Amino acid sequence: MAKRIFNFSAGPATLPLSVLEQVQAELLDFQGSGMSLMEMSHRGKIFDAVYKDSIERLRRIAAIPDDFDILYMTGGASTQFTLIPLNLKQSGKAGYINTGAWSKKAMGQAKILNMAVNELASSAESNHNHIPQIPAIPADLDYVHLTSNNTIFGTQFSDFPQSPVPLCVDMSSDFLSRPIDWSKMSLVYAGMQKNAGPAGVTVVILRKDLYARESAETPTIWRYSTFGENESMYNTPPTFQIYIFGLILKWIEDEMGGLQGVAAHNQKKAQAIYNVIDQYPDFFVGHARKDSRSLMNITWNYANADLNPVFVQESEANGMSGLKGHRSVGGLRASIYNAMSLAGCEELAQRMLAFHKQHA
Amino acid sequence: MAKRIFNFSAGPATLPLSVLEQVQAELLDFQGSGMSLMEMSHRGKIFDAVYKDSIERLRRIAAIPDDFDILYMTGGASTQFTLIPLNLKQSGKAGYINTGAWSKKAMGQAKILNMAVNELASSAESNHNHIPQIPAIPADLDYVHLTSNNTIFGTQFSDFPQSPVPLCVDMSSDFLSRPIDWSKMSLVYAGMQKNAGPAGVTVVILRKDLYARESAETPTIWRYSTFGENESMYNTPPTFQIYIFGLILKWIEDEMGGLQGVAAHNQKKAQAIYNVIDQYPDFFVGHARKDSRSLMNITWNYANADLNPVFVQESEANGMSGLKGHRSVGGLRASIYNAMSLAGCEELAQRMLAFHKQHA
Repeated sequence: MAKRIFNFSAGPATLPLSVLEQVQAELLDFQGSGMSLMEMSHRGKIFDAVYKDSIERLRRIAAIPDDFDILYMTGGASTQFTLIPLNLKQSGKAGYINTGAWSKKAMGQAKILNMAVNELASSAESNHNHIPQIPAIPADLDYVHLTSNNTIFGTQFSDFPQSPVPLCVDMSSDFLSRPIDWSKMSLVYAGMQKNAGPAGVTVVILRKDLYARESAETPTIWRYSTFGENESMYNTPPTFQIYIFGLILKWIEDEMGGLQGVAAHNQKKAQAIYNVIDQYPDFFVGHARKDSRSLMNITWNYANADLNPVFVQESEANGMSGLKGHRSVGGLRASIYNAMSLAGCEELAQRMLAFHKQHA
Repeated sequence: MAKRIFNFSAGPATLPLSVLEQVQAELLDFQGSGMSLMEMSHRGKIFDAVYKDSIERLRRIAAIPDDFDILYMTGGASTQFTLIPLNLKQSGKAGYINTGAWSKKAMGQAKILNMAVNELASSAESNHNHIPQIPAIPADLDYVHLTSNNTIFGTQFSDFPQSPVPLCVDMSSDFLSRPIDWSKMSLVYAGMQKNAGPAGVTVVILRKDLYARESAETPTIWRYSTFGENESMYNTPPTFQIYIFGLILKWIEDEMGGLQGVAAHNQKKAQAIYNVIDQYPDFFVGHARKDSRSLMNITWNYANADLNPVFVQESEANGMSGLKGHRSVGGLRASIYNAMSLAGCEELAQRMLAFHKQHA
C-alpha cells in the first residue's frame, strides 16, 4: 500500500486515488496496445478515442450547449490573460472586476495590449476579503472579465452577473466544482491543476460566434479558431494530461454524482471547516467575509499570530500538508478542491478544535 | 509483464522502459511524501529539487555554457515560431532556411509578425529531399532560423553554419540525439515528445544577452525573460513532464553514456536500416539524398507502390507500429528516436530483407 497524506495544496493539488491507480495500472501498456498512452501519436485511433470521450463527457457533465466549443490549450490562465484581449478586441474597451492578484494580472496584460480597462468593481481597499457589488455593465465594452474563485484570498462568486457583453470567466480554481449557468457565459477557462488534473493543460470553452472577432494578423497559434478548427490538434497537445482529465471526468460522472453531487460534497466539506471558525471567532480569524466565502480555499489567521506557524508544523507532523497561507493574507489556507475527501476536511476540523482547546 | 511493441511513431514516441517503470513505481507516493508528484505544489521543496536536478543534469549532459539560460515553456515549436520574431526583432529582417513543412510554418508566422523574411536557402524544388547549401549569412539580419531535423522528409543537418547573427535552431525532432556545438548557437528549442519525454513541455535554451532585445510592450507570458527570471515558474509549469524529462536525462547519463553514447547508438541504429535500403536500391527507394539523411526519421517508398500498405499492415501484425509515411512523402517512415532500441531497428531491417525476398 502506498502511503497517502491529506494534501491541502493550493495547486497542483490532490487527485482521486482511484484515478491515480488506474493511471498506474495502465502506464506501460494502454488498453493492450503495447505502449504507454504518453508514447502514442496524437493522430492515432487510440488517442483519438480518448480525446473524443473526454470532450463528450465534459459536454454532458457540465451541460455545455452546442454553440460552445471546447478547446484544450496550454500556458495556463496567464496565457488567457493575453489571448482574450487579443481575440475579442473590437472598440478597444473592456471591463474587469478586481477581486485580487489574478484579476490584477489579467488587467495588466489587457493594458499592455492597448485595451482601455474599465475597472467595474474592486475589493482592493479591504485586501480582497469579499466579492464586490457589480454595477450595471455598460453595453459598449468588448467584454467583461472576472475571476470566479480567488485562491489567495479565499473568496468566490456565488452568482454571476447578467452581462450585455460577453462575460469571460477565469475558473482556474473552481472549474467543475459546481454546475455552470451557460446562459450567462461567453468564455470560460481553467488550468486543470486544481480541480481536474495535473498541471499542463488549459480548458477553454467559448461561444463559437466569438471567432468572428479574430484577425488574420494574429499569429496562428494565438487564435482560438485554430484550436476550434483542428480539434485542439493544430500541433501536438499534452496528450497525457487530456487522458487524466478524461479519467477525472469519469470519476465525477460515475462516483460523485455529476456536478450536482460534487457541489453538494464541496458544500459539506467546506462547512465542516467554516463551522469551527464560526464556533470560535475570537480564536480563528477568517479572512473572507461570510457572504463571499470560497468553497475551494479557506483562509484564516490565529488571533495570536504566533500560533500560525505552530499549526502548520503540527498539521505536517500529523499527515497534512500545504496549509501555510499565501503571504498576501498570511496564516493558514486549506485548499479543498474536488478530490479532497470529506474525511480529510473533518480531520482538519478536528485538529483545529483540538488546537483551540490546547491554546485558547 | 506488460506487453511492449516496437513503436516507430513520429511523435509522441517510444520512451525508455526503465523510465516508464520508475514513473509507474512512484506514481502514488513520490519519495515517501504520501503524494504523487503530479499532486505537488510547484513551489514546494520536493518539486524544486526535481526541477533543479533536471536543469543541472541537462547543463552537464549537453555541455551548455553558463551564458545560456534553460527555460521550460509550453506550446511546442508552433509557439516558438511566434516568440522568436516577437522577442528578437530589431531592424525587422530575418533569415530562414527552408527545409520543409516546419520551416515554412516558422516563416509564415514571422511574416504575420511583420518581419521581412529572407529565404536564404531552400530544398522545396526537390520535395525537400536534401539539406541545401547555405550561402554566407548577411550580417544585417536580426537572426537566422533553421530546422535541424525534418521529421516529414527524413533529412537532417549534419553541421550548422557559422552565423554573424544569432542562429535559432528548431531541434524538436533531434534534441539530445547528439552533442551540440554551442559556439554556433544562440537559441535552441525543442518539444520533448520525440527524444525526451511526453508531449507538453518545450525546452528553450538561449544566450542571455538576447533578453536585451525584448520590449516592455510585449505581454509578460510571451517574453523569454519572464521564464528566465522566474526559473520557469512565473506560473505553474507542467510539473509531471519536467519530472519525466529529468528521468530521461538520468537515463542518458547513467545508461547511455551521455550524448556521445547516444549519438553512437543512433548512428548504429540508423545504419542497420539504411544498409538494407542501400543493398536493394531498386526495391527500396529512399526519399532523402544520402548526404542529408536523418538519423531520426528514415523515409522510403517501395518501387512498386502497391507494396507500401502491405508492408505497413504486415509490420503491424508483427508488433511494429507507426511506420506509415507522412502524406507529403508517402510510403514508409521509421522514426527511431533516442529510446528506440538497436534491437527494434535490427528487427525492422530483418523484416525489410524478408519482404524483399518475398516480393522482389
